Amino acid sequence: MSNNTYPTFTDLSQLGEFGLIETLTKDNPIVQSSTVKAIGDDAAIIKNDDEVTVVSTDMLVEGIHFDLMYTPLKHLGYKAVVVNLSDIYAMNAEPKQITVSVAISSKYSLEAMKEFYEGIYTACKMYQVDLVGGDTTSSPKGMIISVTAIGQAKQDHIVYRNGAKKGDIICVTGDLGASYLGLQILEREKQVYLAHPGVQPQLEQSQYLIERQLKPEAQRGAIAYFQKNNIKPTSMIDISDGLASEVMHLCKQSSTGAFIEEAKVPIHPDTERTAIEFKMDPITCALHGGEDYELLFTIDERDLDKIRFMPEVFIIGEMTDQADGIKLHTSGGNIYDLSAQGWNHFKAES
Amino acid sequence: MSNNTYPTFTDLSQLGEFGLIETLTKDNPIVQSSTVKAIGDDAAIIKNDDEVTVVSTDMLVEGIHFDLMYTPLKHLGYKAVVVNLSDIYAMNAEPKQITVSVAISSKYSLEAMKEFYEGIYTACKMYQVDLVGGDTTSSPKGMIISVTAIGQAKQDHIVYRNGAKKGDIICVTGDLGASYLGLQILEREKQVYLAHPGVQPQLEQSQYLIERQLKPEAQRGAIAYFQKNNIKPTSMIDISDGLASEVMHLCKQSSTGAFIEEAKVPIHPDTERTAIEFKMDPITCALHGGEDYELLFTIDERDLDKIRFMPEVFIIGEMTDQADGIKLHTSGGNIYDLSAQGWNHFKAES
Repeated sequence: MSNNTYPTFTDLSQLGEFGLIETLTKDNPIVQSSTVKAIGDDAAIIKNDDEVTVVSTDMLVEGIHFDLMYTPLKHLGYKAVVVNLSDIYAMNAEPKQITVSVAISSKYSLEAMKEFYEGIYTACKMYQVDLVGGDTTSSPKGMIISVTAIGQAKQDHIVYRNGAKKGDIICVTGDLGASYLGLQILEREKQVYLAHPGVQPQLEQSQYLIERQLKPEAQRGAIAYFQKNNIKPTSMIDISDGLASEVMHLCKQSSTGAFIEEAKVPIHPDTERTAIEFKMDPITCALHGGEDYELLFTIDERDLDKIRFMPEVFIIGEMTDQADGIKLHTSGGNIYDLSAQGWNHFKAES
Repeated sequence: MSNNTYPTFTDLSQLGEFGLIETLTKDNPIVQSSTVKAIGDDAAIIKNDDEVTVVSTDMLVEGIHFDLMYTPLKHLGYKAVVVNLSDIYAMNAEPKQITVSVAISSKYSLEAMKEFYEGIYTACKMYQVDLVGGDTTSSPKGMIISVTAIGQAKQDHIVYRNGAKKGDIICVTGDLGASYLGLQILEREKQVYLAHPGVQPQLEQSQYLIERQLKPEAQRGAIAYFQKNNIKPTSMIDISDGLASEVMHLCKQSSTGAFIEEAKVPIHPDTERTAIEFKMDPITCALHGGEDYELLFTIDERDLDKIRFMPEVFIIGEMTDQADGIKLHTSGGNIYDLSAQGWNHFKAES
């Protein structure tokens, strides 16, 4: 036994790839009846009823999408799953299975990988999805995660981005801009820490914003509500790149314009306060900040009564003629063209 | 117009992520009737008949799985798709769709990415699968590719790794070890080139081996033959880590032993010759070299007549009692325990 008080870490090279997968997936619980075969063969097998299969995939790269200096691995695992489930919900479908591939450098210990997978399993349990496959390999540098989410829905329930029409009501399921400001706070505290390693980060005041950044949730409640109340949005998308960018996607694909009321865009009080602290306009954070993972959807105006009792819904504007463009009616009474300045990883790099 | 004779390259940062995806997928042909919605929404939509969905995913990392110094990007795109399709065929299923995610550093040009996607589309056309989704993002260093393949099959056609029993015949669909030696040649020529940049690589003699490494094919013909001739293997796996490792997977999951005849293991004459040139035993390359992407399968001995006319099949041994272990009967008349020494990326690194 070791005499020192540090935890002992297991080198991944002692385990090998098969040993690592086995260790990480030996207690993998399966809850979906559609999962015929999960991990352990060349491929996973999923049973279909009379439904369509919905598939979405995302890649997360260390140094681009996340910074392990302030992202606990468990949160990272959780978030990697949630952002993919969000895409399935955005089709008005229910996620059932995921695959997770991860490339890591040899500096990672088995214990670190277990923590990462704990986050994955926590998300699986929370959203009732099964981990059915993936790949574990090494990388020369950093951590890269690729998650594929697989869901099902009746074909006529699927909601695309292109079904909105003039007069449709534009809604969002929750407040915007918080995740972006959570990231700004984490980045600021990182810089403070790097300059003065003894100083404790001040994060108590910003718990809500940081949680929105590190541990976002997908909007399964909204989809369940639509189902239960026979509501079919005319178009839908999840807000990963900021409201402005997503409104433009819906308008482009639906061939409409849009009119957004700034005063109606939901912004959390902590977002307001912190935006001002950072000398930013709160609406800018809501429009162009990313990673809110709320749903943006449109409904026929005749369905307005149906969403009146929806627990979390905010009406922020309406679809207009394509010729009228995409406009923001500011609280000050002005009307501006809404331009997308969402996250552009390639541009950010150059 | 530019006066120099070099081709002009387009910086990815000029395009942004959406521009890049649009450019790369604007001529994406869709051939499968089950593809309801491909790229362009939050998720892809796939129609199911009365079949199960088969899902497999793989991650390829620059510097671990491929070296761009001798891997043309078009070949890389082709191979990234093929190795995933191989997993779907290994379940006795037919691949129908793929998603491709790729992370690249900003040093890659649009032209390079187009070349990579040309390889992807060539594989899609060859194997009649549709590209239905993916993600394109930046990486701080190197290229990382994650492909998910989605297939379909009738549930009772699915062949797992665990169905073999004592007495079953062990077969492979083609010669082994060539891809491994192709890689050794490419590595050798790379070292020669690095030491003497003026020297042209000598690859003419090794075309077959290099092609097996750079542009492998998946065994769709075998699956079509099974289908047409009402053959259902009792177990199956694709050979990506070397014959020994795959035999051990089948035996472990089927609770059997195995008896392999060295003399029956198919080895191409070029593999024989080159192995000796590298001072290696050809059978070692077949047993422990990787990336052959042939299928290893077992059939009930009563089905032996059914595979007699299979165009490419080699009977290499039979399944035995688990207690008898996994044995290799060498051409010299000895019997050895077969141990797996396949690729272990984590071990290779330490």
